[in-house]
Amino acid sequence: MNQFECIFCNKKYPLNPFRQFCPQCKEPLLVAYEKKKRIIHSDAINPLEKFRDFLPFDTINPDLQLGEGNSPLQKLNRLMLEFGLPETYAKNESINPTASFKDRGTAVAVQIAASLGITRIGTVSTGNMGISTAAYGAKAGMETFVFTKEDTSTEKLLSAGIHGINLIKVKGDYGKLSHKSFKIGKKHNIYFMNSTDPFRIEGYKVTGFEIYEQLKKKNPQFIFVPVSSGGYLIGLIKCFKELKEKKFIQRIPTFVGVQAKGSSPVAQAFAAGKSKYKRINKPSSVAQSITNPEPPGGNIVLKLIHKLDGMVIAVSDEEILAAQKLLARFEGLFCLPASATTLAGLLKLQKKRKFNSTDRIVLVITGAGVKNINVLDPDTMKIKYTDLSELDKSIASIQD
Amino acid sequence: MNQFECIFCNKKYPLNPFRQFCPQCKEPLLVAYEKKKRIIHSDAINPLEKFRDFLPFDTINPDLQLGEGNSPLQKLNRLMLEFGLPETYAKNESINPTASFKDRGTAVAVQIAASLGITRIGTVSTGNMGISTAAYGAKAGMETFVFTKEDTSTEKLLSAGIHGINLIKVKGDYGKLSHKSFKIGKKHNIYFMNSTDPFRIEGYKVTGFEIYEQLKKKNPQFIFVPVSSGGYLIGLIKCFKELKEKKFIQRIPTFVGVQAKGSSPVAQAFAAGKSKYKRINKPSSVAQSITNPEPPGGNIVLKLIHKLDGMVIAVSDEEILAAQKLLARFEGLFCLPASATTLAGLLKLQKKRKFNSTDRIVLVITGAGVKNINVLDPDTMKIKYTDLSELDKSIASIQD
Repeated sequence: MNQFECIFCNKKYPLNPFRQFCPQCKEPLLVAYEKKKRIIHSDAINPLEKFRDFLPFDTINPDLQLGEGNSPLQKLNRLMLEFGLPETYAKNESINPTASFKDRGTAVAVQIAASLGITRIGTVSTGNMGISTAAYGAKAGMETFVFTKEDTSTEKLLSAGIHGINLIKVKGDYGKLSHKSFKIGKKHNIYFMNSTDPFRIEGYKVTGFEIYEQLKKKNPQFIFVPVSSGGYLIGLIKCFKELKEKKFIQRIPTFVGVQAKGSSPVAQAFAAGKSKYKRINKPSSVAQSITNPEPPGGNIVLKLIHKLDGMVIAVSDEEILAAQKLLARFEGLFCLPASATTLAGLLKLQKKRKFNSTDRIVLVITGAGVKNINVLDPDTMKIKYTDLSELDKSIASIQD
Repeated sequence: MNQFECIFCNKKYPLNPFRQFCPQCKEPLLVAYEKKKRIIHSDAINPLEKFRDFLPFDTINPDLQLGEGNSPLQKLNRLMLEFGLPETYAKNESINPTASFKDRGTAVAVQIAASLGITRIGTVSTGNMGISTAAYGAKAGMETFVFTKEDTSTEKLLSAGIHGINLIKVKGDYGKLSHKSFKIGKKHNIYFMNSTDPFRIEGYKVTGFEIYEQLKKKNPQFIFVPVSSGGYLIGLIKCFKELKEKKFIQRIPTFVGVQAKGSSPVAQAFAAGKSKYKRINKPSSVAQSITNPEPPGGNIVLKLIHKLDGMVIAVSDEEILAAQKLLARFEGLFCLPASATTLAGLLKLQKKRKFNSTDRIVLVITGAGVKNINVLDPDTMKIKYTDLSELDKSIASIQD
């Protein structure tokens, strides 16, 4: 039988969506698998089918899916040339049903919910996770609750609200809201699949399996991942750990978690050699979707990264916006500022000569830029105004 | 040798991106293939590789691609139940690199451009096509020009502008701009890949091939497609015609083109039994991306639809917004109003008892709802405000 486990206390607990944290140390629990042979079902197209031996269920209900996954691994050949980078790829998770990696986790958590007969689900989010949970909740016909910050803009809420869910703007300490959601969930029978939900993290693994397959089993040396709650990075590490345990690979890639400087509790703890992070005050960054002052998975990330000789680094808003522009201008890839932290981090480490020319590097792109158009500055773009009668002249004036 | 052909004059011309219209009747030219055996390369994952025998090139440069295609075909099981519909699917083209079907066409047109040594490309667009062309132009390292309406909002331009392209807002008759763009293109060596570009239309076929494959070769009876310029519907019909010619299928599905009532020149001509449409004045609809008063592919659509016994119908803004909501609430699918015309059209025809219980129906979803959030009305959503201390009570008050 699969179980939950606390990787700090080394204790196991029964799988239970309503008890996701260690009763002793309060850290998030993760799914531990019983020992058995696991294979990749390469003939399947549906990623949940293909990697089902590594997921916490035996049968999959396709009527709960929205077509998530099979996202492209795009070779960044123009950036490689421009910056003298080794073989570098973007795993573009913005090409998903609700345009972010969150769909990977929601897809799995909703399968679990349905298999347990749960009919009410929820999450706490100001953006991507709320939209994803709303969409999958709608497809599953589940009553869905999204708790959000009081000052979340109506515009951001609309993409979740259109799915007919219960959207609740909550006044008060947002940091306490996630905690409170689990209490309310237990009482009202609502399964809250928040950012470090153990099943959500299992879903995140699938991004990693696809990277492994798309690189034709040539293991990458480095994988860059934005860090907010830490859930996604934990999932990706867990994937490659399991691939190693099952002898699909010999070596786990070096994981580089990237945070935004204005909200980097995990990177700060890593730099200071600490095993626990400290909550920060007043987080602030242009990379809104990763400004989490108290990441629930932060300590697990620190533990795993220490053990595997990885890194957690921070990049400035300036570096993030420059990287966002580079991805759009050289690679046709318009992503969220949070996603651009990966390229910013790569360019930062390159200056410190961290790479060999034979390395393979993967940047995990977490979400589509169109979701946060406000960070763009039209003044940095080549926009002209002209009259139809002057158009020819205007084009002639643009030098090649 | 493959050639261009005019399906009105029955004349052939050499393939030439700078001559896309019949010199006699001025209608758009289409690609005609030399007779040869064509197979589907089912082992390929890349759709351009898989269906390359049906496309106007022999080799594909993956460095010009952004991972377009392989979009999901989602069974709309909850809507089927709710409305007593036969087997109905959404082919969700919003899950593409720039979140619309335009990527299918741009991907192919850019391959052609590169193979001919063309280094400057362009398009005329107020939205999706401009964004798509900008992204692919950036990836290909081509100098890219997007001409747009004078009053296009800066917000809409940003998603194209971020790719570092030349964005030109043009004052004057927008109807004349497409025409003018071809003249300017010839003069300045810019390949304008506008809405009925023959190579773009070849790319649109790939959506159809995927539908054929995803339905495991069970041919659908009906395919609903939004109609703006007409290019997408022409491409989809062309796909199934070629599948029939090459004996993959016995019968071409019934195509239903759907327009928005406030901008429905093709539907009006169809209803009146005419073979040519009339330009309309003051187009207006909530489905902005399909309000084309003078669709360049309109007459081809009318000819093909007549011949194949299809239909072009119109739906009201009210029906469109209702359908958009239904797709989001029942199926977790948040699409553009333009895309929701397909469901609106289906429900309209269902009232007229057009379907058998054994029919298979496909709705082609053209773009992601997040691209036009302004049409949503928060007052129709379940949004609550509460204090953290009152949250429990607030949830209790929500009835199941």
